[in-house]
Amino acid sequence: MQSLEALQREMESVNAEEDRALQQLRDRFGGMRRYCLYRRSRIIENIPGFWLTALRNHPQLSPRITGQDAEMLRYLTNLEVKELRRPRTGCKFKFFFQRNPYFRNNVIIKKYEVRFPGPVVSVSTPIIWRRGHEPQFFIDRNQNLVHSFFTWFSDHNLGEFDRIAEIIKEDLWQDPLRYYVLGEGIRRPRRRPIREPVEMPWPFGFLSG
Amino acid sequence: MQSLEALQREMESVNAEEDRALQQLRDRFGGMRRYCLYRRSRIIENIPGFWLTALRNHPQLSPRITGQDAEMLRYLTNLEVKELRRPRTGCKFKFFFQRNPYFRNNVIIKKYEVRFPGPVVSVSTPIIWRRGHEPQFFIDRNQNLVHSFFTWFSDHNLGEFDRIAEIIKEDLWQDPLRYYVLGEGIRRPRRRPIREPVEMPWPFGFLSG
Repeated sequence: MQSLEALQREMESVNAEEDRALQQLRDRFGGMRRYCLYRRSRIIENIPGFWLTALRNHPQLSPRITGQDAEMLRYLTNLEVKELRRPRTGCKFKFFFQRNPYFRNNVIIKKYEVRFPGPVVSVSTPIIWRRGHEPQFFIDRNQNLVHSFFTWFSDHNLGEFDRIAEIIKEDLWQDPLRYYVLGEGIRRPRRRPIREPVEMPWPFGFLSG
Repeated sequence: MQSLEALQREMESVNAEEDRALQQLRDRFGGMRRYCLYRRSRIIENIPGFWLTALRNHPQLSPRITGQDAEMLRYLTNLEVKELRRPRTGCKFKFFFQRNPYFRNNVIIKKYEVRFPGPVVSVSTPIIWRRGHEPQFFIDRNQNLVHSFFTWFSDHNLGEFDRIAEIIKEDLWQDPLRYYVLGEGIRRPRRRPIREPVEMPWPFGFLSG
C-alpha cells in the first residue's frame, strides 16, 4: 500500500511538472507571437484601407459588408484580436477608427467571455452614431433582409455560434495579408462595387446597443 | 508589403516551433506517466479486489453497482484507461477479468471515439454471458429501475454525456487509492451489503451487445 501511495505522489508531481513546463512554453511562444503581432500592427497602420480591403476580399465576410459599411470601414485604421487574460476565458476584438462622419467612437470593442458555470456572453461598446448616419437595413434582390456589418457589435444573441467572430479570429486575423492581396491582382475575385445598386433603404433605423 | 510577408512567415514558423515543442513535452511526460501507470498496475494486480473496493467506495459509482454486479466485479483483476492514439481522439476502458461463473470474456473493452465531422460514438466488446447469469434489472425502494453496472458496456446512447466514463476517467483512474482506502478504515463510509435486501429481479433479462 505504501508503494502505491509513493507512486500516486510521483504521478502527481509528474503532472504538476508538466503543467509548469506547458505554462512556460505558452508564455515563451505567446511573447514571440505578441511581438510579431505588434510589428504587424505598426506596418498595417501605414497601409491605408488595409483592413477594409482584407474584409471585403474575404469570401465569408464580404457578403456581410454593405456598401454603407464599406464607406464607414474606410476609417478603420487597425484591428486587434486578443485572448482574455487568465483567469478569464474568451476573446476581445478591438476596431480602431479615425475621426469620421458616421460615429464618434475611436475604438469599438466586442468581447466574448466564457463564464463558468454559464454560457458565453458578449458585450460591446455602444456606438455613438452621428445624427442621420445610423446604418440602415436593406432588402436584397432575393428579398432577404441584409444587416449592416455594424449590427454584429450590438447583436448579443450569439446566433449560429457567432460566425463573424469565429471567422475574424480563426482565419482573417491569422493571415490578413492573404485576403488583402486578393485585391492586389494576385488572384482577383469578382469584386462588388462599394455602393450596391440593388440596396433599398429599410424604413427603420438601426439602434446601437 | 514584403515586410508583412516576412512577418507572416515568421509567425507561421513560431507556431510550427510551438507545436513541435508541445508535442515533445507531451511525449516526454506521457512516457513518464505511462511508466508510473505500468508500475501501478503491477502492484494493483496483486491486491485482491482492489478495483471492486475502489468502485464500491466511490460515492458516484457505488449507487450504480448492484449486489449482483459486486459478485461479478470480484473477478475484476485490472482496469486500464487509455487515450486513443493519434490521429484518433477518444479513450478506451479495458476491464480484465479472471475466469468466473458469470461470463466468458477475459477482457471487456469500451471505447469512445470522437469522429470529425460527427458525434462521439462508443463501441464495446459483446459480453458472452454464461447461461442464466445475465444481469437482471431491479426495482429499488423508491420504485426506480436499477440497471446493472454492466449495462454501461452495451449502452451506446451516450446519455447524460456518459457520466460513468467521465467519472472513471477523470476521478477514479486519477487516484484509485483514495477510494480504495475509504474501505480500509481511514474514513469508512456507510457501506452497503453486497447483496441488497430490497432488490427484486426484473422479469426481463439483460441483453449484452
